[in-house]
Amino acid sequence: MTNSTFNGIIAYTVTPFDQNNDQINLDVMYQIIDDLINSGAEAIAVLGSAGECVYLSEQEWQLVAQQSIAHIAGRVPVIVGICELTTKKAVERAIFAHDLGADAIMVSPFSYYKLTDNEIYDHYQSISDNAAIPIMIYNNPMSCGVDMSPTLMLNMIKHIEQAQMIKESSGNIQRIHQIYRTSNGSVPCFNGSNHIALDAFNAGAQGWCTVTPNLIGDLPKQLLQAIKNNDQTLAKTLFFQQQPLLEFITKHGLAVTVKAGLTIKHINAGDARLPLKPLPASEVEKLKDILTLINHNTH
Amino acid sequence: MTNSTFNGIIAYTVTPFDQNNDQINLDVMYQIIDDLINSGAEAIAVLGSAGECVYLSEQEWQLVAQQSIAHIAGRVPVIVGICELTTKKAVERAIFAHDLGADAIMVSPFSYYKLTDNEIYDHYQSISDNAAIPIMIYNNPMSCGVDMSPTLMLNMIKHIEQAQMIKESSGNIQRIHQIYRTSNGSVPCFNGSNHIALDAFNAGAQGWCTVTPNLIGDLPKQLLQAIKNNDQTLAKTLFFQQQPLLEFITKHGLAVTVKAGLTIKHINAGDARLPLKPLPASEVEKLKDILTLINHNTH
Amino acid sequence: MTNSTFNGIIAYTVTPFDQNNDQINLDVMYQIIDDLINSGAEAIAVLGSAGECVYLSEQEWQLVAQQSIAHIAGRVPVIVGICELTTKKAVERAIFAHDLGADAIMVSPFSYYKLTDNEIYDHYQSISDNAAIPIMIYNNPMSCGVDMSPTLMLNMIKHIEQAQMIKESSGNIQRIHQIYRTSNGSVPCFNGSNHIALDAFNAGAQGWCTVTPNLIGDLPKQLLQAIKNNDQTLAKTLFFQQQPLLEFITKHGLAVTVKAGLTIKHINAGDARLPLKPLPASEVEKLKDILTLINHNTH
Amino acid sequence: MTNSTFNGIIAYTVTPFDQNNDQINLDVMYQIIDDLINSGAEAIAVLGSAGECVYLSEQEWQLVAQQSIAHIAGRVPVIVGICELTTKKAVERAIFAHDLGADAIMVSPFSYYKLTDNEIYDHYQSISDNAAIPIMIYNNPMSCGVDMSPTLMLNMIKHIEQAQMIKESSGNIQRIHQIYRTSNGSVPCFNGSNHIALDAFNAGAQGWCTVTPNLIGDLPKQLLQAIKNNDQTLAKTLFFQQQPLLEFITKHGLAVTVKAGLTIKHINAGDARLPLKPLPASEVEKLKDILTLINHNTH
Repeated sequence: MTNSTFNGIIAYTVTPFDQNNDQINLDVMYQIIDDLINSGAEAIAVLGSAGECVYLSEQEWQLVAQQSIAHIAGRVPVIVGICELTTKKAVERAIFAHDLGADAIMVSPFSYYKLTDNEIYDHYQSISDNAAIPIMIYNNPMSCGVDMSPTLMLNMIKHIEQAQMIKESSGNIQRIHQIYRTSNGSVPCFNGSNHIALDAFNAGAQGWCTVTPNLIGDLPKQLLQAIKNNDQTLAKTLFFQQQPLLEFITKHGLAVTVKAGLTIKHINAGDARLPLKPLPASEVEKLKDILTLINHNTH
Repeated sequence: MTNSTFNGIIAYTVTPFDQNNDQINLDVMYQIIDDLINSGAEAIAVLGSAGECVYLSEQEWQLVAQQSIAHIAGRVPVIVGICELTTKKAVERAIFAHDLGADAIMVSPFSYYKLTDNEIYDHYQSISDNAAIPIMIYNNPMSCGVDMSPTLMLNMIKHIEQAQMIKESSGNIQRIHQIYRTSNGSVPCFNGSNHIALDAFNAGAQGWCTVTPNLIGDLPKQLLQAIKNNDQTLAKTLFFQQQPLLEFITKHGLAVTVKAGLTIKHINAGDARLPLKPLPASEVEKLKDILTLINHNTH
Repeated sequence: MTNSTFNGIIAYTVTPFDQNNDQINLDVMYQIIDDLINSGAEAIAVLGSAGECVYLSEQEWQLVAQQSIAHIAGRVPVIVGICELTTKKAVERAIFAHDLGADAIMVSPFSYYKLTDNEIYDHYQSISDNAAIPIMIYNNPMSCGVDMSPTLMLNMIKHIEQAQMIKESSGNIQRIHQIYRTSNGSVPCFNGSNHIALDAFNAGAQGWCTVTPNLIGDLPKQLLQAIKNNDQTLAKTLFFQQQPLLEFITKHGLAVTVKAGLTIKHINAGDARLPLKPLPASEVEKLKDILTLINHNTH
Repeated sequence: MTNSTFNGIIAYTVTPFDQNNDQINLDVMYQIIDDLINSGAEAIAVLGSAGECVYLSEQEWQLVAQQSIAHIAGRVPVIVGICELTTKKAVERAIFAHDLGADAIMVSPFSYYKLTDNEIYDHYQSISDNAAIPIMIYNNPMSCGVDMSPTLMLNMIKHIEQAQMIKESSGNIQRIHQIYRTSNGSVPCFNGSNHIALDAFNAGAQGWCTVTPNLIGDLPKQLLQAIKNNDQTLAKTLFFQQQPLLEFITKHGLAVTVKAGLTIKHINAGDARLPLKPLPASEVEKLKDILTLINHNTH
């Protein structure tokens, strides 16, 4: 089954902490959400990689899910991220997200022992059987230690009721090709690798899951619009304008980079959780320069 | 600082569950511990990879730590495994293990976002600063998504007070060489890659961290003894006798394989937690054949 | 220095052999060249990977270079491939190609012992110093055992007189991005990875080096034209129409696949040289189906 | 079929050049051969990786083969290296070596296009069918671009008449394990990875193919002898004494390192062929220190 609720720019929140890196800072979280909606994002995703989902306690994860959905209040659809080592816990969180009224969940397997395709399939099947909420299958091999092939994901889309969309973050453009061609473009495929955003759109991705609106507002949306208008010259210009940031994010990690960028923008979302360290000062300077240059070119 | 409490065979427990894969089965856990001590193991390690540490709830992890230490009751030293995504949680568990009277903790970083050497170093430093218990630095890149070089680990041994031993599970014999030669054999290095046990001993490993005594009793200890006796002919014979099991474990994973093997031995430790699946029947048959052949050659 | 002689579709010849795989079949070679020119190719490249350059004797290599240039007779520019293990031999061939009147040479390092960036740089410098003919720097890590970074290649373009163009065949779209953005699009960059042809054009590649016109005539040229017309809808359709062939070629190898395809088209170019074997019959059938479907969709 | 002519230390020659890197320096070649025989090597191998086989012209390769065999004159058995891209050329060289009276040939596939197991098998079969000389199957994936599994190599040993020995240079100790255990130690397996020499002997390797006697005389032979005497303490001491050199060679390459080392020993074998560059001065100093320390510890 496939889902057509979502498309375009799906903007991701970080999870802001207070000064001790201890408590969730809800006020900043609300501001971040409002800024993303103002950037024109078609949907908001919370508790993804950028949201440090696996670094939160159960209570924190629930709090963020609950407060985000309440604050968004239907202005745009909401996706809640679930990345759990056990099927049992993933199912519990899926039910929780569904009960809160989330529009979809984004589920990635997380591995310590490597998982077989069968094990992954049944993981998604169990979630689908227990929670009546659309699932975005999320492939993020670098962080999750497990790589789902297009074949496996399309097979799950075909047979598992709630598996309705794919988010591909392997960074390999051929995966997007294969999903598009094998499904004749019928399966909603979202690109999660910032640095291949242009290529993914041109190869048939239905949308872009990205944290970048936190730092560069509606530029990602402008890129999407140029693609929709079949204006490749503008699309290429917009892509290469953003590309230094996209490469920087890919190199330094979503949460750490976005939190540094928010600080530059005087939004205090705190740091990522230890052992993750803030960007070193020299890299903060580079990020500042990148953002300044992008904004300068914008106006 | 280095530690000389440990050497020889450090045997690992699995965490046995009841039929629903839900509750810890303490009775079976005690039996497993007793069997390992009877196999001649010089120490017992609980809550390692084999113990499904990352798949347990906080309460379960605490229960296993507590009950294991109580049941071992000083018969052999006990090591408690800690594999956490945040430094804060790792510190909490280190303090908990120390308070219980564990003899050491075995700490591996666990990553979602990749970690730099600095981030890893400070992770260990924080643990050492907060809990007065010897740390075995555990490198397991396949499962933890982070690979610590010999240089980094030796540097931590040199400068971080409680970092006193290394467990190397990358499977690369040159890492053992490098640790041995760089430290002139002064740093206790334990091999955690079953399939290179012979090579690691000959290259200077002080011990072998292994689950195999759960299935083949004192054969690992016999191999160690042959090495100590400088009897390479016997050591080679003993190694190649065990090797099919060592390869099988490496291929199918510690927890899943040992639980299947215990079932073959009529010890009901349940299955590993979903999404991990039990060995398929055909592989169980292969494991049976391997164990039968090993035992046949033993007597 | 950069060169603007070349752009668009650069079509590659295979080297046809007689029945015993022994002698060059010149008549078939002329026919192949004529067919490629008729397909609208902007240039012809001989003695590339597809031309089995490294499998030919010195005499054969010279014969193919000579006869190809003579037969093309200025109808389109000609590039001659050079892939040698020693600098001395590469220089000799560069001089030979220049003396024949080739318009450019395409040079890839070939390695047994791994090469450092310095060694590669000086290899190209020596060629440039000894032969006054434009060099296309050819990065083909899979076949040549050496991977040149965009930074290294752009550095050579900047400082080595005859190094004037890049052919990127790593299959990594980000390499094309990096070359385009770093050079502000000023360095002629040709994509040599068939399966990312659409992405490479959209990311700023100036042309496509490809064997596909041997099998599907002017379809690659049509794709290029759609891109030039800023018609992404058509470009995407044309790309996905060709994509099964592009993936098939990437999987089975250029020379073996094209020779099988030519046989299907009743052009007898013989087989690739042993130890390379012809496609097995089952794969020939698949290739037939792919070509039939592509041609069916074309008309 | 297996062969028991060879075992122990098989010492490799480099191919010495004159000052212009142009002509083979036969006088130095004779001296190198005599020194290797004096170091106690059980056999000499010429035209291997160290001998820059793939960087020589046909005439040079023939000259080295001919003159080496003539100069060795039966004092020890001789193996001739063959590493060719085409089966035809490999067969020609095998016949040539056989006609010269070589005792064996060491054959590695060399790849531009990747080779399948079938293609490799038939390559060896053709050589065996055409030249009545024992073949040592040589697996060197790093340099040759092709990795032969133990299963493939053992299968060839079983079915191809002249395939009689294996040289394993992947650097993976488990390959040696697998060959030893699968064949019950019946297939002569030679280790070609210097840095795992100790491990390979202990795991059942019948010999060590090595260039090190060129620089450290009979130390490799002493290591072998300690293993034969079942004296692991001495074997370990001897291995770790040599290990810095073994690691250095693995890092910098056989030909380049040995030629630098010979120069240090006032034997002028020239440099490796361009594009390979001589060791930079700073690395030459390191090599000097390593050799000085090894020799100091020896006396």
